[in-house]
Amino acid sequence: MSFELAVHRKALDLGKLSVEMTTAAGSGHPSSALSLAHLVTVLMYHQMKWDPKDPWNAGADRLILSEGHAVPIIYAALADLGAVIGKSPKDAKPLTREEVLKLRAIESPIDGHPNPRLGVTFFDAATGSLGQGLSVAAGVAVAAQRDKINRNAYCLIGDGEAREGQIWEAMDFIAEHVLTNCVPIFNCNDLAQSDYVSGQQSSDVVAKKCEAYGFIARVIDGHCPSQIRKALDELPVIKNGTRPLAIIARTIKGWGSASEQGMGKHGHPVKKDDMVKIFAELDQTAKELGVGDYKLNSELKVGAPTAKPQADEKKQIKIVAYAEGMANAGLGKDLEAGKAMASRQAYGAALLALGQADKRVFGLDADVKNSTFAEFLFKKLPQQFVECRIAEQNMFSVAAGLSAAGKIPFCSTFAKFVTRGYDQVEMAINSGANLKITGSHAGVTLAADGPSQMSLPDVAFFRSFAHTQNYDGKNAVNYFFPSDAISCYKITELMANIDGACYQRTLRAATKALYKPDDTFEVGGFKVVRDGKDLCFVAAGFMVHECLKAADELAKSGKKAAVIDAYSFPLKADAILDIAAKSGNRIITAEDNYTGGLDAELGVAIARRGGGIKLTNLFVNRIPKSGREPEEVLEYSNVGLKQILASV
Amino acid sequence: MSFELAVHRKALDLGKLSVEMTTAAGSGHPSSALSLAHLVTVLMYHQMKWDPKDPWNAGADRLILSEGHAVPIIYAALADLGAVIGKSPKDAKPLTREEVLKLRAIESPIDGHPNPRLGVTFFDAATGSLGQGLSVAAGVAVAAQRDKINRNAYCLIGDGEAREGQIWEAMDFIAEHVLTNCVPIFNCNDLAQSDYVSGQQSSDVVAKKCEAYGFIARVIDGHCPSQIRKALDELPVIKNGTRPLAIIARTIKGWGSASEQGMGKHGHPVKKDDMVKIFAELDQTAKELGVGDYKLNSELKVGAPTAKPQADEKKQIKIVAYAEGMANAGLGKDLEAGKAMASRQAYGAALLALGQADKRVFGLDADVKNSTFAEFLFKKLPQQFVECRIAEQNMFSVAAGLSAAGKIPFCSTFAKFVTRGYDQVEMAINSGANLKITGSHAGVTLAADGPSQMSLPDVAFFRSFAHTQNYDGKNAVNYFFPSDAISCYKITELMANIDGACYQRTLRAATKALYKPDDTFEVGGFKVVRDGKDLCFVAAGFMVHECLKAADELAKSGKKAAVIDAYSFPLKADAILDIAAKSGNRIITAEDNYTGGLDAELGVAIARRGGGIKLTNLFVNRIPKSGREPEEVLEYSNVGLKQILASV
Repeated sequence: MSFELAVHRKALDLGKLSVEMTTAAGSGHPSSALSLAHLVTVLMYHQMKWDPKDPWNAGADRLILSEGHAVPIIYAALADLGAVIGKSPKDAKPLTREEVLKLRAIESPIDGHPNPRLGVTFFDAATGSLGQGLSVAAGVAVAAQRDKINRNAYCLIGDGEAREGQIWEAMDFIAEHVLTNCVPIFNCNDLAQSDYVSGQQSSDVVAKKCEAYGFIARVIDGHCPSQIRKALDELPVIKNGTRPLAIIARTIKGWGSASEQGMGKHGHPVKKDDMVKIFAELDQTAKELGVGDYKLNSELKVGAPTAKPQADEKKQIKIVAYAEGMANAGLGKDLEAGKAMASRQAYGAALLALGQADKRVFGLDADVKNSTFAEFLFKKLPQQFVECRIAEQNMFSVAAGLSAAGKIPFCSTFAKFVTRGYDQVEMAINSGANLKITGSHAGVTLAADGPSQMSLPDVAFFRSFAHTQNYDGKNAVNYFFPSDAISCYKITELMANIDGACYQRTLRAATKALYKPDDTFEVGGFKVVRDGKDLCFVAAGFMVHECLKAADELAKSGKKAAVIDAYSFPLKADAILDIAAKSGNRIITAEDNYTGGLDAELGVAIARRGGGIKLTNLFVNRIPKSGREPEEVLEYSNVGLKQILASV
Repeated sequence: MSFELAVHRKALDLGKLSVEMTTAAGSGHPSSALSLAHLVTVLMYHQMKWDPKDPWNAGADRLILSEGHAVPIIYAALADLGAVIGKSPKDAKPLTREEVLKLRAIESPIDGHPNPRLGVTFFDAATGSLGQGLSVAAGVAVAAQRDKINRNAYCLIGDGEAREGQIWEAMDFIAEHVLTNCVPIFNCNDLAQSDYVSGQQSSDVVAKKCEAYGFIARVIDGHCPSQIRKALDELPVIKNGTRPLAIIARTIKGWGSASEQGMGKHGHPVKKDDMVKIFAELDQTAKELGVGDYKLNSELKVGAPTAKPQADEKKQIKIVAYAEGMANAGLGKDLEAGKAMASRQAYGAALLALGQADKRVFGLDADVKNSTFAEFLFKKLPQQFVECRIAEQNMFSVAAGLSAAGKIPFCSTFAKFVTRGYDQVEMAINSGANLKITGSHAGVTLAADGPSQMSLPDVAFFRSFAHTQNYDGKNAVNYFFPSDAISCYKITELMANIDGACYQRTLRAATKALYKPDDTFEVGGFKVVRDGKDLCFVAAGFMVHECLKAADELAKSGKKAAVIDAYSFPLKADAILDIAAKSGNRIITAEDNYTGGLDAELGVAIARRGGGIKLTNLFVNRIPKSGREPEEVLEYSNVGLKQILASV
């Protein structure tokens, strides 16, 4: 009984602080916080094995708050426990009540939604765009499973949020990988933002779904401490089995305060003048529960982690030389024969070499590993590979979880299907995830399959991040588009050694080698693959080869065109402008994607100088279609050799 | 028995043609096509009520092929039936065997994946990026439900594809809206591209899931004509009930040809030299089934649609004047008081006015209708509103289905959450959908909620489509970012009258009126809101107001800065450059998003001219965080008034 009373007392106290915080901020979600008060209390003060003084302990249990807007209740618990915040152990400090009352202030790390990179390392990922947390938890759990570390990942999911398909991608993933150390907890309060929660997300239906997905589903009263404890107590037994646990908690939005309950309370902080009334209601609830001034006792004790595993050393990763790497991947013969090779093959070889060089490297793919060539890693080092099936959103968020657990996740699928996860990728970037993405079959040269398989706005999308700094002051995204197998091999190695997010495009089509295995590549770098004094082609990937063909044609009439392989953003554009100044002050960009890539990169650089160089920008300016040969689709898309020459 | 034999014979013939087509193309998915041979035959030659000569009949049943790569089997049926293709009735022609053998050729409309806008109007949407088709079918079905038209939408879904969460978002949507006229058919052949299909997508587990989602699940042998027919025969009864039908068909990938079966056959056309062998195997199968040369008989007869509803007239839509529209939405008092107003409120008022003016207009929202103000329409015209809950991917694909059914769907949610559906939006654009998107709470001025709720790369993403032509030669996307309530009201009306996709950003924050209700706005347009001879600020949305403040500050020291509201892409940039030429040849752009928007638009335009104007581009160049006031977050993001003034 004392456990019951202690939990109620704590839940009420944390709830009060949540209300205070959101009122101080002038925005936020107190009623959502109150609905989680008991679940958070039992998890953080009883169930979880963790150390409030060491959020970096890789053996500790983790809590991912998928419904990020309810975060004040967790901030309240962290402040109550004096848990440590800080971007790294060296600037660690205990979170105070004073600090959490700065919720959402520009100078405070106590952001509107969870974000570890601002300093609340308790969290493994930034959440708030709904439906992503469970995948992150699954990533943490799969890392623990592979490393044989006994840690659990708990995830709190809103019922409205459970409509997001990604939640069910994660459920499939957890069941398939038998991640019994990952515990989804559905918070079913029946109230969404603009309406009641759909019957499809009622606790009964969610429970049925959980069972159908292969989980053991337990429906409980989410405000009953003993029921919560009992459900969680099953975990040790469940971990010996093959079906994961799912908890479906029936809760009340605005629990404890009648005025905070019912429709229309979502995302509305209590007005300053109403605070007394709300607190009185909460006190009345305390009275009714008989908790009075019941104080925290020994029954509410944070459990310590059982171990503190040694983190993997963050060393520079050096892979075997190109020829050896290709031979190792079974591509040696083609190399000897000097055949043109698709960059995606070199990606696969480099990924394998990386996996062999460092066990932190993980490959993830969405059922196209035989097309992206991530299968080289899968076949030789299955323990460092995670097949995510056709569910890209889940893949990227799982990768964020793996990154939080110290891995270096390399995700691959068709560049087109990366689009499916742009929201998840952005949240991973905001989380500071060390995420590497390789989108294969990039651009229109995929040809025959048509536009449903072609990545076209991806360059503009990722370029926009390349000029943004993340919370560590580094490029939010490092962008690469190699033109041959050698540069792809080297760039993949480079990506592993960058601390932060990278996006690389690879090609379906084979291209001739332009580089030597000892050439070096860098973020923002470019290569002059041909000198010329009359004009300057700037391209990347497949289009470098088309520009070389154009330069060959022009040479016949005595015109000397330089060709630059601008394989990375943020591009060292000024250096290219200097070259262009010696090449007729004329740049022609040719891209196999929609506008907003190289043309924007150089156009803005020229305009910032006030001009002096004239730009012609060729890009895919109509929605493409199937064609049997890459060159046909390039021409259809107005970026073929014909159009390049005409643009001169 | 004759039905059985006729279906087998037809399935084999269509299968053979599918094999031939993919071999001619040199790429494609014959084994996937064979796995659907019977399902497609029974659907197209027996079950569906449709007219092969009139794919535009709005009363006909529809078939959406979600697993788009299996399309050859449908092309084969269309050619066999001499079904009509063409972008519009006036260029209609029967599809021939000769034409389908041009599969994937650059000059042919027979694309690698389904695409109605290239001419195969049999399809309602471009598919191929997996997991989207069922949502499109649900959109077609919900339109029929609202219009009380007795038509069915069938959707073929691959088992591997059933891992995509969006499929289950659609299942929730169908069950919730009791769309018994929408029939998901899962094609369970147990083979994906790079591996066996996960047990989580086995026919048994899929059936359990369907039941849990509220469907009546029927597991059948997908190569047994009578079982297929029997399951579909239940539909008239099911349509009187409240639980939709889901068919789970166990099939064989490469059915009929042993050599085409088993792992590793995905996406590999038969080699020319092997064709004889494959055909012999298919003939042997025919023999074993006893179908011999059994010919199509009266049992295989395409059923005609029961009616041909009059399509809604495609008229210009004119809405009530601004003041009336705002009053109608309950915003009249604020207008009279001359209060600043959020553009999102004007969006809601305009959407209501549009809905009242034309019943084709539909509103869709993802549980934030009280924030986007789509609720004005919901409250007054619920029959023209579709609440899609927290499942954005499904929402955009449902909208594509509504568009195919002749509606004008307006989707709204936070601009950040539109990101969730970028892949679906792109596929809708490729489908030629008349899709209108309004992303609210755009940019960093949302402030307090933090970056998980802020749209930042969206401008770069949608700009990349604004310079691309769709299959009708129009802008693939028309982009808008109004700076006040009046321009938002007018632009929303404009969007309704554009035939094609539009994206509009609206603001959380209130802004002062800059325009008069009779001002006009156009695609690519801009407004000079202040003249100036010394320099020229170019901005959109909230930032127009910040630039006006900056201009005020500069005026104090005698500097006259022009301020241009560049509210639309593709922007008439040259006209702005002409103005800048009279404003000190100096442009400063200030944006509340990541780079690649206005700066790229003007930078490229300047560079294409070879210069003459100097650009300074301010944008959000670090990942933002929460702040209690918009101005604080702007300053944190390096686009505050302080930074604008410093850039001068």
